Amino acid sequence: MIEQEHILALVDMLGDKGVVRDAGAMVAYQTGARYDEGLAGLVLRPATTAEVSAAVAYCVRNGLALIPQSGNTGLVSGSTPDGSGSEVVLSLDRLTQRFDLDLDNRSLAVDAGFRLSDVNQRLEAHGLFFPIDLGADPRLGGMLSTNTGGSRFLKYGDVRRNTLGIKVVLADEAGTVLDLDCDLRKNNTGVDWKQIFIGTAGSFGIITECVLNLEALPKQVATAYLVPASGAHVMPLLRAMEERLGAYLSAFEGMSRNAVAAALDHVPSLRNPFQGGVVPDYVILCEISRTWEPREGEQTLDAVLETVLGEIWESAEAPLADAFVGPAHEMWALRHALSEGVKHSGRLIAFDLSFRRGDIMAFCDRMKAEMPSVFPEVTTCDFGHIGDGGVHFNLVVPKDSSAARDKAFEKRLRDWVFEIAVRDFGGSFSAEHAIGRKNQNYYDLYTDAKIKALAAGLKAITSPAALGAVRFG
Amino acid sequence: MIEQEHILALVDMLGDKGVVRDAGAMVAYQTGARYDEGLAGLVLRPATTAEVSAAVAYCVRNGLALIPQSGNTGLVSGSTPDGSGSEVVLSLDRLTQRFDLDLDNRSLAVDAGFRLSDVNQRLEAHGLFFPIDLGADPRLGGMLSTNTGGSRFLKYGDVRRNTLGIKVVLADEAGTVLDLDCDLRKNNTGVDWKQIFIGTAGSFGIITECVLNLEALPKQVATAYLVPASGAHVMPLLRAMEERLGAYLSAFEGMSRNAVAAALDHVPSLRNPFQGGVVPDYVILCEISRTWEPREGEQTLDAVLETVLGEIWESAEAPLADAFVGPAHEMWALRHALSEGVKHSGRLIAFDLSFRRGDIMAFCDRMKAEMPSVFPEVTTCDFGHIGDGGVHFNLVVPKDSSAARDKAFEKRLRDWVFEIAVRDFGGSFSAEHAIGRKNQNYYDLYTDAKIKALAAGLKAITSPAALGAVRFG
Repeated sequence: MIEQEHILALVDMLGDKGVVRDAGAMVAYQTGARYDEGLAGLVLRPATTAEVSAAVAYCVRNGLALIPQSGNTGLVSGSTPDGSGSEVVLSLDRLTQRFDLDLDNRSLAVDAGFRLSDVNQRLEAHGLFFPIDLGADPRLGGMLSTNTGGSRFLKYGDVRRNTLGIKVVLADEAGTVLDLDCDLRKNNTGVDWKQIFIGTAGSFGIITECVLNLEALPKQVATAYLVPASGAHVMPLLRAMEERLGAYLSAFEGMSRNAVAAALDHVPSLRNPFQGGVVPDYVILCEISRTWEPREGEQTLDAVLETVLGEIWESAEAPLADAFVGPAHEMWALRHALSEGVKHSGRLIAFDLSFRRGDIMAFCDRMKAEMPSVFPEVTTCDFGHIGDGGVHFNLVVPKDSSAARDKAFEKRLRDWVFEIAVRDFGGSFSAEHAIGRKNQNYYDLYTDAKIKALAAGLKAITSPAALGAVRFG
Repeated sequence: MIEQEHILALVDMLGDKGVVRDAGAMVAYQTGARYDEGLAGLVLRPATTAEVSAAVAYCVRNGLALIPQSGNTGLVSGSTPDGSGSEVVLSLDRLTQRFDLDLDNRSLAVDAGFRLSDVNQRLEAHGLFFPIDLGADPRLGGMLSTNTGGSRFLKYGDVRRNTLGIKVVLADEAGTVLDLDCDLRKNNTGVDWKQIFIGTAGSFGIITECVLNLEALPKQVATAYLVPASGAHVMPLLRAMEERLGAYLSAFEGMSRNAVAAALDHVPSLRNPFQGGVVPDYVILCEISRTWEPREGEQTLDAVLETVLGEIWESAEAPLADAFVGPAHEMWALRHALSEGVKHSGRLIAFDLSFRRGDIMAFCDRMKAEMPSVFPEVTTCDFGHIGDGGVHFNLVVPKDSSAARDKAFEKRLRDWVFEIAVRDFGGSFSAEHAIGRKNQNYYDLYTDAKIKALAAGLKAITSPAALGAVRFG
């Protein structure tokens, strides 16, 4: 669907490696790594910010709609083309040249096409890492444009908190490059423009380079499973842990019985760690960590965790029904297997919600109370990041049920869940996956008219041309 | 200069308490708490967001320019009226009603007129605080609109990092209230609009309420003075401390000999803590802290600090010339007296700079090398936040010198310092005081034309009317 003349001009500009036009080779770029499928008209793979700028300018001047694509591991159709075959995918996967490490500044200036795992592998020898802990392995550009959070948000925050600067290409006729390539930690000299490109799925500009804050790698870790006495005891438990462990606390993850059972059922390598094999209603995986090597005279972290759990065990609130310290590797293996397990237990309809921390359990309780009468075919398999309010609220219907094949069913279910989460609880319909084609309608529904008008105004002054899967206009 | 008709209408709207028109009573609102003086045409003191909205709408419809004012403790003339007597000051000092503490969420929804000290006093009983540590005692609205940092940035970050949501009134004919009053930690459902109002001195809107992240109060603290072997050893020292102390490290403050000497000379209550009373060239105040009460079997923090300093003392790099642990109260007293001391030692010309951390000492060295030949009458009395790159680069000229009375001298000096800091070192001309009338010309000079055009565009779609001391248009 893209005219030959444009293809030749873009090959001339970016070289053979920079343009993918073969239908077979384009499949990888039009299919999401986990879900989702579209049809690309053409795929561009520029290797530098200057090439991105030139390619964008050409496409804008010739009315070609652009979809920026990074690791393409998202879950909301933010980086795949629609089905028209008329959109041009601009992949960041060759933007992997710049890697300037500043050890004194604890920062890294880097091209946006690097994968998270590659970045952290290169940093390991220096005892540093980019502290965003995810199940997927995205490229940096996508992490910035979705503002990913992950399992250690409680300690390190999200991508926004760990970004010092960016370079971004605007979708205007010049392919303007905004140099927000700041490597300072304190700088208040006007609007902090990078913030509008973080978490907005590339619709206001394409992030091509970034300067990241790095943190020291943990050198000691201890983990425990905590079984709260009831759902109402989860928050007292979290607060007791925060009070007693402060900055040591690096994860506080909740796992529902259904999610744990699904993982144990479908991932044979896992050991059932619970007494008599009985999975509790709700389990917390708690992790504490330190960035230094064990020192003489210093308690081990296991001992610290045992002591603290003992204190809590004996406290008047009695929030604990059970607790045991165990090997970090094994305890995390179960946590990381939850997604996989849930996926195998039926057709999965996944939600990425967040709440005030104190509302998480109340929301889950309400869902479990009302679901059987409203959607009897649905099983809830939630888990999430209790420490920061995030809930991966996963719903499963049997694979062979009519509901599993019914698109309208999924929409009814989504509408119902979001309505309670957003309107009744003041929660978020997208905690850490940002917006894409898949949840565009919920942005349209739940966003105040004035905010939508502001976003349209911002779009007009930054990247007026068609860019990205989301419509902020 | 404000017409009687307008004054009456505003009194009608806000009540007698809500309007100050007596010239004597207005002095406090037209004079900065530390520097700066202007002339107010009228002062408004609305007590709720709704009153702010009504007052703003009235002023916009009647062409009255507004200057939002919070604690007025800033140093860059961001919250005082100009000398024309035609501007209306809108003070936040009566916005002190809402104070909604959410202990589970560790957050506080609060009116923007509260002072930092009041907020922290009320939180103390809950073992929490808003973790921005400043010399001044501003109100929250001003802290947000300047994005203050302070002495414990290294551990807790700046105001931006600790703000979950805001309510903001736009300067348009409706006095539109934007409800960005989010209390979620993870929420990526579009543009994070609060970011453009943080650090921009109220020019895009008036922040009237906010939701703040709170942190657990430290319950154990240890401090030490470290004397680096040379300026070049400051960074190895910081990196060694970060590596060995991780999240314990809560301050790493640099103090030059001249600044320390000025404090010791002019603040009689201070004890000279250095051997033989000889102040070293450069001293680091290092603090570590924990949020829990001392536990049996756990080393004291003083012992931890001694151990770590011993390790560093014996390391191959040998970055330490001297180091001693001492009482936190006394060690911080000297640090906090630096401003006062420097002010008494002559006419002060203060800079609020920041750099890549590794450039701080190089910049100070270059200044000390070149200053004597370019500005022989100037003494440098710098101190700052080495851990985050901030430098309070204070220059002093003798009070009775001609330079002290010469406005052109100050401008020449500022131009010269900024040119080296910004152009040669890639530093910031405003690290944590944001922009005001005083450094507007440096914004104009050092900001890229495209960024300035974007800011003007943003101004047009948010608060098109005259608002604030800064011109982003």
